[in-house]
Amino acid sequence: MNAVRIGLLGLGTVGGGTLELLARNGDEIARRAGRPIRVTHASVRDAGRPRGPQAANVQLLADPFELVHHPQIDIVAELIGGIEPARALVLAAINAGKHVVTANKALIAHHGNEIFEAARRAGVAVGFEAAVAGGIPIIKTLREGLAGNRIQGLAGIINGTSNYILTQMRDAGLDFATALADAQRLGYAEADPSFDIDGVDAAHKLSILAAIAFGMPLCFDQVHVEGIRGLSAMDVDYAGQLGYRLKLLGIARRTERGVQLRVHPTLLPQRHLLAQVDGVINAVLVDSDALGQSLYYGAGAGAGPTASAVVADLIDIARALTIDPEHRVPYLAFHHDRLQALPILPIDAVETAFYLRLTALDRPGVLADVTRILADQHISIEAILQKEPPPGESHVAVILLTHTVRERAVREAIARIEALPSIDGRVVSLRLDHLEH
Amino acid sequence: MNAVRIGLLGLGTVGGGTLELLARNGDEIARRAGRPIRVTHASVRDAGRPRGPQAANVQLLADPFELVHHPQIDIVAELIGGIEPARALVLAAINAGKHVVTANKALIAHHGNEIFEAARRAGVAVGFEAAVAGGIPIIKTLREGLAGNRIQGLAGIINGTSNYILTQMRDAGLDFATALADAQRLGYAEADPSFDIDGVDAAHKLSILAAIAFGMPLCFDQVHVEGIRGLSAMDVDYAGQLGYRLKLLGIARRTERGVQLRVHPTLLPQRHLLAQVDGVINAVLVDSDALGQSLYYGAGAGAGPTASAVVADLIDIARALTIDPEHRVPYLAFHHDRLQALPILPIDAVETAFYLRLTALDRPGVLADVTRILADQHISIEAILQKEPPPGESHVAVILLTHTVRERAVREAIARIEALPSIDGRVVSLRLDHLEH
Repeated sequence: MNAVRIGLLGLGTVGGGTLELLARNGDEIARRAGRPIRVTHASVRDAGRPRGPQAANVQLLADPFELVHHPQIDIVAELIGGIEPARALVLAAINAGKHVVTANKALIAHHGNEIFEAARRAGVAVGFEAAVAGGIPIIKTLREGLAGNRIQGLAGIINGTSNYILTQMRDAGLDFATALADAQRLGYAEADPSFDIDGVDAAHKLSILAAIAFGMPLCFDQVHVEGIRGLSAMDVDYAGQLGYRLKLLGIARRTERGVQLRVHPTLLPQRHLLAQVDGVINAVLVDSDALGQSLYYGAGAGAGPTASAVVADLIDIARALTIDPEHRVPYLAFHHDRLQALPILPIDAVETAFYLRLTALDRPGVLADVTRILADQHISIEAILQKEPPPGESHVAVILLTHTVRERAVREAIARIEALPSIDGRVVSLRLDHLEH
Repeated sequence: MNAVRIGLLGLGTVGGGTLELLARNGDEIARRAGRPIRVTHASVRDAGRPRGPQAANVQLLADPFELVHHPQIDIVAELIGGIEPARALVLAAINAGKHVVTANKALIAHHGNEIFEAARRAGVAVGFEAAVAGGIPIIKTLREGLAGNRIQGLAGIINGTSNYILTQMRDAGLDFATALADAQRLGYAEADPSFDIDGVDAAHKLSILAAIAFGMPLCFDQVHVEGIRGLSAMDVDYAGQLGYRLKLLGIARRTERGVQLRVHPTLLPQRHLLAQVDGVINAVLVDSDALGQSLYYGAGAGAGPTASAVVADLIDIARALTIDPEHRVPYLAFHHDRLQALPILPIDAVETAFYLRLTALDRPGVLADVTRILADQHISIEAILQKEPPPGESHVAVILLTHTVRERAVREAIARIEALPSIDGRVVSLRLDHLEH
């Protein structure tokens, strides 16, 4: 059969990795897809830059819009990232009748609804497996593998940079700034790390996973987002003493009152499988009614893992080139006219357990005041850890673990605790989850 | 769109679970598949037996051959298990132009090549996700999610019964017979547990995974199979003292000299993710060139998890009903005329590390004799654990961990060690793997 012809938008880390993977495993890929898959064109910013040997048979174009309209390309792979011009290029490719594969989570999270609608009208496929959790086929799993299940929720370590930093803070006892600098030196964090450490990247991915899991339109704007910036080494340490590890989790969960969508640092029991996921690795835990809990674990970033997902999408499209569009696997797992705009629960109404750290004057009665405030808010305490003050120090750290409670109650309790004259500064609060639902 | 009409062969645990799941999640399934999926017929051995409310709208047939030929059925789900009459029914359904879904690992492992060939001629789809690792979509992952990768190997806990028994032996300190009786009492092991505890069930599944991973025909007969029957509580304990856990693994691995295909109890480092997989849970670790190591974890058996996989296959077929057969995902991931009969390495030529336990007279020189024999076979020792003999006992247990070595060398060394006059009885040998490839 004729080769499927790919045009790559971008020949950077992911584009180069995709080109290399298609060349290296070309024979096995053709045996799987039933036909060769070949990169025929690529758009690059600097056509004069020297490229690897794989690029010798690829026609380089300086104008990406020329590529998306090129009559000899079947599938356009958008691997430049960012919103614009990626969005304009993807829409132009779709309108030119090309199938599209993208690794761009920001684009899908912000403009997926628009892109899928355009693709539906044009009758083309859009693959975005690489947008979430790198090479782990989590989108395929949710969309196809678990398609018989009602998915109740999922929780994932879906930002490798943050997970690397948290792992270093725990294992090497580093403070946040040092661990971040380490990650930057090793290429695990970018020069401007905001998207990763402030939870935005994880929120992009979570909004995609939630839409697919629950059959609702993408709603990135409604994700509650907190990152790990400025997380204290002290809290990582105390969490460990209490039997917990800190992970940046993306959590989506159905409740009777609405869908929870949140990204924040979370204390997890040390023995939980997700707590074992260290370094730049990603993992997603899915709760579904027929299967129960299942876990998907692997490399969440990098040239190879991302190319793995891009090429899987290319093979899917090549295998299904003759299918009529109405029968393709729907972009968001559910057919477009059967999506439901489920209500999203505001964070105030979410119920979790909490880790609270307060700095108190080391004198009698303080703990009585604090526990009285918690009792007033119907917050019950699971554990208290009080550290001896260092010699000559008049303040002591008190750590409290609460049982599950509605967030609003904790916020009100914290405000009252901070107003106590015996309490110094802010109360540090972190959510705690056993992920047993 | 019209409903897809399903005929169930069998309404036992899996058949009943499938019927129940399709009814319970009927609305979400129709939103995903683009059309309702309905069980219209089922064949049962005893049509007079009372059934649940879901069966009220299902026409029960006493003759399964009437079902597979029924003109008003689109997909036949074979959920009776065993080789015959399952094989004859599946072939009859295929020849009658029905798509087929099956949960039958023995059938696919033994007769998959024949069944796929018949299906190819008839232009119908055959789904068998439920045949391996219950509800974990591992077949889809290997066949589609990792389709861009060259898969180097995989290792899996793919028999829940054995894993439950091993977990109980370790956690509760039970001996094998007691743990097996427990598993039988709880319904985790059958009255005749041979297939599970002798590794046959795991070998069925491993042969299916290996064919899909490497693009070769099914070759169950060439899997090296050892089960956990009669495993000693002492060895579980010593393994723990040395930092290892015993798991029944199915391992498939490419080497330059051929493919390794083996099922046997294996010592794994305690901190390895697979070592954390306890009870009836299954997990598969995959090594592939672009993604690296990835892990898939979940319930490997039971009505719900198996029905999850059966229904996923039904939805896949419903989604792809209009695709032309040549473009379907190939049964064994690679197109039928592009499979390669790779050489399978005999177990003698496989290289692993070993755990050896010998019972020796407690006197000087014994260890010198043993280590001399090992040195003669170029077997280097990683660790030695010698237990004090109990009071009044003249024999002592000596445990040796070797570095990686070719199996034949270990077998020869063991024969020579057993011939030493200072050694009592047989040498217990278990393979040890760090799964770091």
